Amino acid sequence: MTQHGSTGADDMLPFTEEEYLERIENTKLRMMQFGLDVLLVSDPANMNYLTGYDGWSFYTPQVVVVALAQDEPICIVRGIDLNGAKVTTFLDGRNLLGYPDDYVQNKRKHPMDFVAEILQARGLVRGVIGVEMDAYYFSAASMAALEQNLPNATFKNAYTLVNWIRMIKSPQELQYMRQAARILEKVMATAIDAIEPGVRQCDAVAKIMAAQASGTPEFGGDYPSIVPMLPSGVGTSTPHLTWSDQPFVSGEATILELAGCRLRYHCPQARTVFLGKPPQRLVDAAKVVVEGVEAVLSTIAPGLTCEEVEKVWRDVIAKAGFVKESRCGYSVGLNYPPDWGEHTISLRPGDKTVLQPDMTVHFIPGIWQDDWGIEISECIHLTDHGGDALANTPRRLIVKD
Amino acid sequence: MTQHGSTGADDMLPFTEEEYLERIENTKLRMMQFGLDVLLVSDPANMNYLTGYDGWSFYTPQVVVVALAQDEPICIVRGIDLNGAKVTTFLDGRNLLGYPDDYVQNKRKHPMDFVAEILQARGLVRGVIGVEMDAYYFSAASMAALEQNLPNATFKNAYTLVNWIRMIKSPQELQYMRQAARILEKVMATAIDAIEPGVRQCDAVAKIMAAQASGTPEFGGDYPSIVPMLPSGVGTSTPHLTWSDQPFVSGEATILELAGCRLRYHCPQARTVFLGKPPQRLVDAAKVVVEGVEAVLSTIAPGLTCEEVEKVWRDVIAKAGFVKESRCGYSVGLNYPPDWGEHTISLRPGDKTVLQPDMTVHFIPGIWQDDWGIEISECIHLTDHGGDALANTPRRLIVKD
Repeated sequence: MTQHGSTGADDMLPFTEEEYLERIENTKLRMMQFGLDVLLVSDPANMNYLTGYDGWSFYTPQVVVVALAQDEPICIVRGIDLNGAKVTTFLDGRNLLGYPDDYVQNKRKHPMDFVAEILQARGLVRGVIGVEMDAYYFSAASMAALEQNLPNATFKNAYTLVNWIRMIKSPQELQYMRQAARILEKVMATAIDAIEPGVRQCDAVAKIMAAQASGTPEFGGDYPSIVPMLPSGVGTSTPHLTWSDQPFVSGEATILELAGCRLRYHCPQARTVFLGKPPQRLVDAAKVVVEGVEAVLSTIAPGLTCEEVEKVWRDVIAKAGFVKESRCGYSVGLNYPPDWGEHTISLRPGDKTVLQPDMTVHFIPGIWQDDWGIEISECIHLTDHGGDALANTPRRLIVKD
Repeated sequence: MTQHGSTGADDMLPFTEEEYLERIENTKLRMMQFGLDVLLVSDPANMNYLTGYDGWSFYTPQVVVVALAQDEPICIVRGIDLNGAKVTTFLDGRNLLGYPDDYVQNKRKHPMDFVAEILQARGLVRGVIGVEMDAYYFSAASMAALEQNLPNATFKNAYTLVNWIRMIKSPQELQYMRQAARILEKVMATAIDAIEPGVRQCDAVAKIMAAQASGTPEFGGDYPSIVPMLPSGVGTSTPHLTWSDQPFVSGEATILELAGCRLRYHCPQARTVFLGKPPQRLVDAAKVVVEGVEAVLSTIAPGLTCEEVEKVWRDVIAKAGFVKESRCGYSVGLNYPPDWGEHTISLRPGDKTVLQPDMTVHFIPGIWQDDWGIEISECIHLTDHGGDALANTPRRLIVKD
């Protein structure tokens, strides 16, 4: 929910104020461990996580300032988005600030000039200031503007500091992810049903996006952070094509990578659909991929490292002569475009992070060859003792003959 | 079209190779004027504009390198997206490079380390290297990685260098924008029809998004760079809320800001819908806004400056006692999330850019008060002598009583 009914009352926030305050406390603890006095949060998911702030306004710079020296964060957005901050956050009005509109896309001034002024006015430029250096909406120009305005400040890269806190989901967060899974099941069924020879890809996408937004009768859908991806034919050799207005063709595969989204929480999944009689190589590859997914599902558990999980998959496909060089999974949950991944753990060699209960991971093994490919994935909730697939969709190559 | 049929042949690119080569030539001319030897293009719209590259892959760093010293640009993407680059660009295989997957979201290495290696290997680190410092997907960490790897290089901020070339649309680009306008007309009619008391916002959005993707029987729709925004009730006081699963309510206004998109070219538009009998203040405000839009449409022409156009609007609303502090328009066309604006001109005081034929501008005047607002906008094509609204939707407060 990105707009809390027509009353705009903040008692309609998706989480209790206590949950937000706990997240802020956890952030301050990590800031202390990391030697930060102030943290500038630019990642829209982190801004939402700490304050509730929501809106498609991240195309102009905006930040949440967390300071050890003050209880509540400060939220600084473009002036015309200030009412949006009032509607969507629990913050006190004196901690909501908007910059004048002539800071927007203006060669002579930058929104971070305004942010620097606020930091100075509030006495927050002593000590060490953390910045999320690799966040999508924290540009090189944002960094340069801060450095220029605050020449005596000490900056430290705190990218993913909040993301790591987001990895462990609360009961309420898990409830939203389960709702996202219910939406996803409808979305995936809609997609599989829509793909037929002669149907334009864009018309199948129309049905998919409608299912994503409508959600279920009990709870509506939110926009996933990634649009439907459905490479078809030779396009299946590469994972990130979206769609065209060409029709689906009999004798070709289509890879669906889709999500359900609820209040910005995602449950993603991939499936591969074949129209007609699939070639043996695809049938064989599907069998291997499903075997790999099921081996991981029966093995994954708190206490294992990310690379140990990846090795389970790697060993299964190696027996069949396949190698996959890209990572086969990542942490998933709350996010905004362009990604639903949380940019923390990766299931790949070298990642020695130990899995913990209530992490949520998109295990997405894919095999891409020169001119074809296959993906079958699951979004996994780490329970106390193992891992459960959040969504329930037939786990196989979908053949429509 | 983000995927060129099932053949993947690059003769299905949306523009002729000649048009891409002309764009590259124009870029090199500007680079020379600006004193650049090399330009690193990170903005996905600019990458697409110069090479055709397309795909939802901008969530990991990627660049197109334009160098005066070589004919063709180099496109560097994540390894698994290399096949996507083969399918969507006209570039020679030796100019398509992919970085290994362990560069992705890895604290110990950065994709820009790889880019720096390529620049060195190709002898492109002498002279001045332009970077798009305020592009969404060129993070502070990307800049830091380049500086660390190339300590002797000279970097210069070339943000919007390519964007300014994109402002003047070619005949083929204008054709795609007109197609986007046809899609938008269907989208807007669908939205106005869907908004009824008791209908959940998410269910109206489902129909809107379906219309955006399906497009028309002749040409399909692409995903707009901004999801449907439809603040309702008190939410109309702020422009960038998306939707909730609350129902529309009789006696409230909803502001629709929507686009049609064709092959990444956008035609955006805003309209305000009222369910029931609108309050007089809204009727009066609508009259003023429409008068302002029509004054601008009958005045706008090549040769005027941006601030002169804004003054036409400002004068109309001032007579009615309104003031709008934010800009009331910007250049629009080819783009990727999170914005369909081109980040060049703004219709606001101080912008002395002279309008030229075949620019396309989203003129979006809005009036936002403390607890209500209104928007009625048009996407305008600057002709040789004036300006034409691209889409044809009733230009008034839409009342559904």
